[in-house]
Amino acid sequence: MNVHSAAIVGASGYTGLELTRLVARHPALRLEALYSDRWSEELAGARLPLPGPAAALRYRPLAEADRAEAEIVFLATPAEASAELAPKLLARGARVVDLSGAFRLEYAADYPAWYGFAHPAPALLAEARYGLPELAREKLAGARLVTNPGCYATAIALALAPLVRAGLGLQGGIAVTGMSGVSGAGRKASEDYSFVEVADDLRAYRIGRHQHVPEMEQTVARYAGACPPISFTPVLTPIRRGILATITIRTGPSAPASDLAEAMRAAYRDEPFVRVLAPDKVMVKDVVHTNRCHLGVAVDTRAGAVVAVSAIDNLVKGAAGQAVQAMNAAMGWPETAGLDLVGG
Amino acid sequence: MNVHSAAIVGASGYTGLELTRLVARHPALRLEALYSDRWSEELAGARLPLPGPAAALRYRPLAEADRAEAEIVFLATPAEASAELAPKLLARGARVVDLSGAFRLEYAADYPAWYGFAHPAPALLAEARYGLPELAREKLAGARLVTNPGCYATAIALALAPLVRAGLGLQGGIAVTGMSGVSGAGRKASEDYSFVEVADDLRAYRIGRHQHVPEMEQTVARYAGACPPISFTPVLTPIRRGILATITIRTGPSAPASDLAEAMRAAYRDEPFVRVLAPDKVMVKDVVHTNRCHLGVAVDTRAGAVVAVSAIDNLVKGAAGQAVQAMNAAMGWPETAGLDLVGG
Amino acid sequence: MNVHSAAIVGASGYTGLELTRLVARHPALRLEALYSDRWSEELAGARLPLPGPAAALRYRPLAEADRAEAEIVFLATPAEASAELAPKLLARGARVVDLSGAFRLEYAADYPAWYGFAHPAPALLAEARYGLPELAREKLAGARLVTNPGCYATAIALALAPLVRAGLGLQGGIAVTGMSGVSGAGRKASEDYSFVEVADDLRAYRIGRHQHVPEMEQTVARYAGACPPISFTPVLTPIRRGILATITIRTGPSAPASDLAEAMRAAYRDEPFVRVLAPDKVMVKDVVHTNRCHLGVAVDTRAGAVVAVSAIDNLVKGAAGQAVQAMNAAMGWPETAGLDLVGG
Amino acid sequence: MNVHSAAIVGASGYTGLELTRLVARHPALRLEALYSDRWSEELAGARLPLPGPAAALRYRPLAEADRAEAEIVFLATPAEASAELAPKLLARGARVVDLSGAFRLEYAADYPAWYGFAHPAPALLAEARYGLPELAREKLAGARLVTNPGCYATAIALALAPLVRAGLGLQGGIAVTGMSGVSGAGRKASEDYSFVEVADDLRAYRIGRHQHVPEMEQTVARYAGACPPISFTPVLTPIRRGILATITIRTGPSAPASDLAEAMRAAYRDEPFVRVLAPDKVMVKDVVHTNRCHLGVAVDTRAGAVVAVSAIDNLVKGAAGQAVQAMNAAMGWPETAGLDLVGG
Repeated sequence: MNVHSAAIVGASGYTGLELTRLVARHPALRLEALYSDRWSEELAGARLPLPGPAAALRYRPLAEADRAEAEIVFLATPAEASAELAPKLLARGARVVDLSGAFRLEYAADYPAWYGFAHPAPALLAEARYGLPELAREKLAGARLVTNPGCYATAIALALAPLVRAGLGLQGGIAVTGMSGVSGAGRKASEDYSFVEVADDLRAYRIGRHQHVPEMEQTVARYAGACPPISFTPVLTPIRRGILATITIRTGPSAPASDLAEAMRAAYRDEPFVRVLAPDKVMVKDVVHTNRCHLGVAVDTRAGAVVAVSAIDNLVKGAAGQAVQAMNAAMGWPETAGLDLVGG
Repeated sequence: MNVHSAAIVGASGYTGLELTRLVARHPALRLEALYSDRWSEELAGARLPLPGPAAALRYRPLAEADRAEAEIVFLATPAEASAELAPKLLARGARVVDLSGAFRLEYAADYPAWYGFAHPAPALLAEARYGLPELAREKLAGARLVTNPGCYATAIALALAPLVRAGLGLQGGIAVTGMSGVSGAGRKASEDYSFVEVADDLRAYRIGRHQHVPEMEQTVARYAGACPPISFTPVLTPIRRGILATITIRTGPSAPASDLAEAMRAAYRDEPFVRVLAPDKVMVKDVVHTNRCHLGVAVDTRAGAVVAVSAIDNLVKGAAGQAVQAMNAAMGWPETAGLDLVGG
Repeated sequence: MNVHSAAIVGASGYTGLELTRLVARHPALRLEALYSDRWSEELAGARLPLPGPAAALRYRPLAEADRAEAEIVFLATPAEASAELAPKLLARGARVVDLSGAFRLEYAADYPAWYGFAHPAPALLAEARYGLPELAREKLAGARLVTNPGCYATAIALALAPLVRAGLGLQGGIAVTGMSGVSGAGRKASEDYSFVEVADDLRAYRIGRHQHVPEMEQTVARYAGACPPISFTPVLTPIRRGILATITIRTGPSAPASDLAEAMRAAYRDEPFVRVLAPDKVMVKDVVHTNRCHLGVAVDTRAGAVVAVSAIDNLVKGAAGQAVQAMNAAMGWPETAGLDLVGG
Repeated sequence: MNVHSAAIVGASGYTGLELTRLVARHPALRLEALYSDRWSEELAGARLPLPGPAAALRYRPLAEADRAEAEIVFLATPAEASAELAPKLLARGARVVDLSGAFRLEYAADYPAWYGFAHPAPALLAEARYGLPELAREKLAGARLVTNPGCYATAIALALAPLVRAGLGLQGGIAVTGMSGVSGAGRKASEDYSFVEVADDLRAYRIGRHQHVPEMEQTVARYAGACPPISFTPVLTPIRRGILATITIRTGPSAPASDLAEAMRAAYRDEPFVRVLAPDKVMVKDVVHTNRCHLGVAVDTRAGAVVAVSAIDNLVKGAAGQAVQAMNAAMGWPETAGLDLVGG
C-alpha cells in the first residue's frame, strides 16, 4: 500500500468527524485537507484526538473544496452539495467517495421525489459504484466514484439480501422498523433534536417516505434478483449512535424450507465485518464504534413470518467506516485496512 | 361515589408503586393495606410521596395477602401468584383487579405454552372481564374479577381494532414492532437490565413468543370480528417508561378505500384517554405519566401497506392507570376518576 | 378558597408548560389566558393534557400580555421581559408572580453584572416578596409581587440556611457543585443542548459567575444572619429535569458540636415539602414531578468538613411548583393546594 | 519493542474487557491468556471484536490464574483477590500490573479502614510503583509490580498536583465532587444499578469515605510536597463511562499570584495524554474512548476560591489505558504505544 493523499469535505458534521478519525489513522492515507465552514481556520487537533500530522491541519472554507488537490476526496456534504462538487473533483482527476445520497439511485428521475432536487449530473449515476462491499465488491475495484450507502439501507439490505435470495418475501410484503440514534439526523441546532425533546422519548417519522427506501429496494433487487416493496418506518430513539432494524417478511402458513440462519451465515462466511448471531443477541452496543454489522433471524411459524434483526453503528458501518472499506476495495487494499476498531 | 376500602398486593414493583400513587389519591378509594415482602414493615410514606393516611401505612408480608379485608384488591403480582390468590380473595367477597396475565386468555389450554404454568383456576377465565374500557366497556359494569390488559396488548389492540374493523389486514399479515421502556421488565436485580448494559443500546427479544401475542389477537378478534396472526417483535429501548408500537398492515396494491384516520377518530371520539394525531406527532414523551394513548395512521400507498403508530405509558395506561379506569367502570364511577394526571 | 382568574405569560417554555399543568388543576384558580408567540392561536389541549376548560384555551401573542385581565398573572418570561411587564400588570391591579430573576436581587446595582441589563423598575425590588415559603413565609401574606426563587438558589439555600444558622461556614468557605438537568437551560434550538452533544456527557459552565450566586448568598444571609461567599460550580448533566447539589462547608479540625441532621430536621419539621434523609438516600428520581426538596447532611470529620446534599425538580420546586406554593401563601390558602403531585 | 506475552485476570469485568481490547492490539504484546469464571470456556471473539489470534482465545477459570505463564500479567480483579494473586505471580517471575487498590496505599495499616481487609502482603507495598506516569514516571522504569491508580484519584491528582505545587490549598481545605459513569461501579447484577433506578437520576454516595481519598492525598503529597485533607463527594450519574471532577480550593480574599492555567500547562506541556483547556470546554464526551485527561481551571476571585475541572474516561485513563501506559513506561516503550485511540 503506497501512501495516497486524502481530503475530507464537510469535516465537522458527525459523519465528517468520524471519517477524520479513521482517515487520519489509515496506514495508506495521508490526510492533507479538511473542509468545514463551521470550524474554518481552527486546528483539527483542537476538535478531536488525532495523531500529530492530522492534528496540525486547519479547517478550510467549503468554498475551496472544489480545488482540493488530494488524490482521494471524501464528501461528507449534503446530497445537493455533493452532486455539484463530485463532477468538478472528478474532472481534476481525484477519486471521489461520496457519503451523501447524491449518486445512490439508479435513475435521475427519482431524485426530485426522494431527495427534493433535480439531479445536476445524471450521467454520473451510471458510473458511480455502490460502496457496500459485502454485496457489490466486484464492481468496486478501480472505481473513480464510490457512492457510499445510506445507514438504514446498509443495515436492511445486508439482512434482506440473503433472505430474498433464499426465496423469501417475493409474494407477500416486507415491513421494516428502523430505530436510529440521533446522530443520524446530523448536527443540528434544532429544538426537535434537543436533549429535552429526545431523551426519554420514541417517535416515528417520515413513514414510507424516507429517502433510503428506493436505495434499499434497488440494492436487494440487484443482489437477489428481485425485491418486493418495503414498507419502512424509521423511529428516532434516545441513543447517540447506532441502528437496530427489525424486518418482518410474510411467509404464509408454511414455514420456510431452508435454514435461514445458515443461509445468512453462508452469505457472509468470509466477511470480516458481518456476524450472524441468535436474533436476541443482536445488540447496538456490540457494534457501536466498530465497522461491524450483526445479523440474526427468527422464524415466527405461528404467525407465518420471518423476522430478521440487524445492527450497525450508523456513523461507522453506516457511513465513515463503510466509506473507508469501500475505498479500500476500490484501491485494491485489504478491506480491513484502518478499520480494526477497538469498539466499546 | 361512596368511599370503598382498597388493598394492593405486590406494592413494591414498578406497577405496584404506580398503583399506590393512584389509589392513594382516588376520590372513592381508601387505601388500607399494601403487601410487599421487599419492604415489609416499612412506612409507605418513606418510599414515595403520598397523602397523609396512605403515607402512614406499613407494608405487610405477601403471605398475609390472602386474608386482605379490603373491598377492592389490586393484584400486582406475577401471573402464577395471581392465579392462586384471586380465587381466595373472591371467595372472601372481595372485588379483584388483577394486573398480571393470569386471567387474560380465554382458554386455559393456552397457559402452559405462553405463561409456563397450568392454570389452577380455569373456571374463572370465563368470569374475568377484560379491563380495556375503550373496547370492552359494556362487560365491565359490576365485574367481580377484572383482568387488566398487558401493556403491549393495550397499545396494539387500541390501534388495530378500528383498522381491522374497517376491513384491513384480514388477507395479509400484520407485523408489529413494540418498543418498550425498561420498567416493562419489572424491578429486577439482573445484569441484563443494568444501566451499563441497557443505556445506549437497542435489542429485540422473544420474537414471536411474547405472552401478549395471544392476548392482542384475541382482543382484536372480539372487537373487530376477526384477527389475522400478528408477528410481534418486542424491542428493549433505553427509556424508563413508555411504549411505542409500529404496526404495519399489508393492504396490497390498492389503497384502502376509507379514511383510516377518520375511522380511528370515530372509534374513539368520546374517549377521554385516546387521541388520534398525525403519525409523526405520536410521541412517548407526551403520554408518560398520563393514562393516555396517542394513535396515528399513515398510508404507504407505494408499498401497499398501512402503518399505525401507538404510544402509551406502560405503567399507567399499560398497567396501573388502566386498572383504575377499569375499576371505575366496574363500580359505575366516572372512568376518569383519580386519573386527571399532570403528565410531563 | 374563592376561585380567582389566572394567566400565564411565556406558557410554552418548560417552566410555562409545567405551570400550565399545575394552574389548570388548582382548586382555587381558573386559568383564563395563556400567552406564547411560539404557539400563538393553537389550542392548549393540543399541546399538553389538560382538563376541559383549560384545554379549550388558545395561546395568545405575547404582545397582548400587558393587557392581561386575570387577577393573578404568572410571568414565565426572561428577566428583562418580566422587568418590563410586571410594573404594567401591577398598575392594572393584578397580583404578579414572576418566575424570572427580574426581582430577586435586593440591589438594582447588581443587575448589570449578574443579569446583563440595567433594572428598569428598581423601586419594585423593595416591594417584591421572595417566594421561598420555607424561609420567608411570613412576608408572603398578601404580597402583590412575588419573586420566585431560582432553581439552584432554592436547592442550595434550603440546605444551607439551617447549617449556617447552626454556626457553620462563617469562618471558612462554602464550595457548591450544582448538577442540573437540561430543561434548566430552557427550551432552545441550540446545538449545544442537542441530544448528541449532551447525552453521555458532563460539563461545568459559568463557574463562579452563575446569576443565582448573589441570590443564594442573600437568601442565606437573610435567614441565618450572615453568609460567607459561596463558590458555585454548575454542571450540565444528561437528565431532563432535576437538580442535585453537593455543598461542602469547611469546619476545620474540630467536628461540629451540634447534630446537624437534627438541626435540619428541626428547621423543616412542619414543612410539607421538605424531607431530611440519610445523604446517600437523597436522589433526584424521588423528587422529580413533585414539589419536594430532599436534604441530607454528612460530617466528614477526617477532612474537617460538612457535606450537605439537596435534590429538587428544577421545574417544580425549582420553578412552577414553588410559584404555586408561594402564591398559595400570598393568598392565604393552604400551601399544598394544587400541589399533591403523584411523582414518579 | 520485542513482543512479550501477556495475560489478563478478571477479563470479563468492564475494566477487564477494556484491557482486552487494548492488549490485543498492542504492538509489543501477544495476548495469550484470559481468565474469567463468568465466561469460562467461551471464545473471546464471541464476546468482543478482537483481531484474529486474540479472538481465538478461550476464557479460563480464575482458579488457574496463579499459574499464568505470561511475562506480563494484568490483574483486573477485586483488591483482596489481587493482594493474594500478585505475590504468587511475582514469585513465578511475571511482571504484574494490578488495576485494583491492593497495592496503592503506602501503609498496610490503612487497608482495614479503607478497603475492609488486612493486607496479606504488606512488604510489597514498598515495592509497588504507582502507575500514574505524568506524576511518577521516573520510578516506573523496570518496575516488577505496577499499582494502577484509581479512576477518581487519577482525575483529581492530575488536576490538583500542579495547583498545590503552586502553593494553593495548603491553608484552607479542598472540596471535590466527583461525578462518575455507572461502569465505575463494576459489572453487577444489582437492583441499585439497574437502568430504571439509575437513568434520570443523580445521587451522592460514600461521602468522605471513598477508598480513593487516601490515595489522592498521598499522590498529591508525593508530587507537590504536601496535601491538605480533601473532602470528597462521589456522585453517580446516568452515563456509561466517564468522570468529571470539580475541585474547589479555598484561596481567601487575595487572588492567586500566579497564572494557574499556565502552571497547569507547564506541568503537562510534553504529555501526550493531558490537555489544558478553558474550564467550560472540559467535557466527558471529548475524552471517552481515549486515554486523555482534559483539565481546566477558573479563578473565582469574588468567592476567594480556585475551581479546577478534570475529565477522563474511567475505563481508559482511569483504568485500562493507564495500565497500558504505565506498563509501557515500565518496559521502556513509548508511552503512547497501543493507545492511539480513535475516541468518539
